[in-house]
Amino acid sequence: MPASSPAPVTSSPDVHPVRGYSETKDKLNARLARVEGQVRGIQRMVEEDRYCIDVLTQISAVQAALDKVALKLLDDHANSCVIGAEPDQQAERTTELMSAVARLMRRG
Amino acid sequence: MPASSPAPVTSSPDVHPVRGYSETKDKLNARLARVEGQVRGIQRMVEEDRYCIDVLTQISAVQAALDKVALKLLDDHANSCVIGAEPDQQAERTTELMSAVARLMRRG
Amino acid sequence: MPASSPAPVTSSPDVHPVRGYSETKDKLNARLARVEGQVRGIQRMVEEDRYCIDVLTQISAVQAALDKVALKLLDDHANSCVIGAEPDQQAERTTELMSAVARLMRRG
Amino acid sequence: MPASSPAPVTSSPDVHPVRGYSETKDKLNARLARVEGQVRGIQRMVEEDRYCIDVLTQISAVQAALDKVALKLLDDHANSCVIGAEPDQQAERTTELMSAVARLMRRG
Repeated sequence: MPASSPAPVTSSPDVHPVRGYSETKDKLNARLARVEGQVRGIQRMVEEDRYCIDVLTQISAVQAALDKVALKLLDDHANSCVIGAEPDQQAERTTELMSAVARLMRRG
Repeated sequence: MPASSPAPVTSSPDVHPVRGYSETKDKLNARLARVEGQVRGIQRMVEEDRYCIDVLTQISAVQAALDKVALKLLDDHANSCVIGAEPDQQAERTTELMSAVARLMRRG
Repeated sequence: MPASSPAPVTSSPDVHPVRGYSETKDKLNARLARVEGQVRGIQRMVEEDRYCIDVLTQISAVQAALDKVALKLLDDHANSCVIGAEPDQQAERTTELMSAVARLMRRG
Repeated sequence: MPASSPAPVTSSPDVHPVRGYSETKDKLNARLARVEGQVRGIQRMVEEDRYCIDVLTQISAVQAALDKVALKLLDDHANSCVIGAEPDQQAERTTELMSAVARLMRRG
């Protein structure tokens, strides 16, 4: 990563695709804020010496919420940034998408 | 772990087993605080219209961190609250542990 | 599903998209044949009263192999049947693809 | 399960713990035989050029079946070989169990 120049991420969609989640940005961040609150809740549970199994149940709930966010992001991305890409970019973006899927399946 | 003071168990182990993570409580919450920060970072990325794939990579990192916390909790719990339980409670706690494992494997 | 007529799956690509894995069909089935052999090996291990943990290790190996096959199929499908689809079909096929991803993430 | 003959343990329980799934051995192998049949069915689907998404759905079904077998094995093992172990072996076997859980969570 260059140290002297700022990375122009969103301003050059031809070089680097824009994010495909603009419409649902508020919804996404509302969900993520809820996840953040859940993680804070888990810390409180640990602080209060709550039973391990109950803590684990909350961790599973956070995982489920994050998987849901990830699936939404994947879907938005596939619809906007893969399908919507220039033909010569579609293959590359598909590869990128599949790498993200592999990481979400814990195989990346 | 304090050497001079007894561990303040939160409830009667016969009714509700004590949590098995007392020694690692600070470490656990340090990890969870880091997860909380990561989730906040993801919200910032969404706010700044960062590229979806990069957001997804961060979500995968949070999932990995949470899986690690969960595995640590499971291990502590198995060692303290299952093995350490009264013989007549061990079967029940094993069932409980296995339900937690199933949920973490997204099969609960 | 009609009971009296055979389902003409592959013959009408416009109604039902063709599979996108033709080139790698032999490779795919070679991998699946290996998975089949692994599953047979696990049955033999159970038959021979082998240690549970070793049986579980083999199950994890099969899961890894199946995940790999699934990721390959997803990738081929995305490249052929989603990107390659008529514009008016791309959205539908993306939805279909994402449902498959959700199932592989055990969230379907 | 033979009623008249003692269960032929494969090795000394002190050196190598016996498998904890003797009672359910037939059931386990019946499930694994079904998984084997499903994997063969997937190969046939590939052979017949069936639609990728349908193939992926079958792979997810196999993953679900294998997860179920794994959870059953884990449960049997925890109940017989961990809880039932000599006190000085319980910690080691718990560690071993947790490594198996981590592998099933694709984090091993």
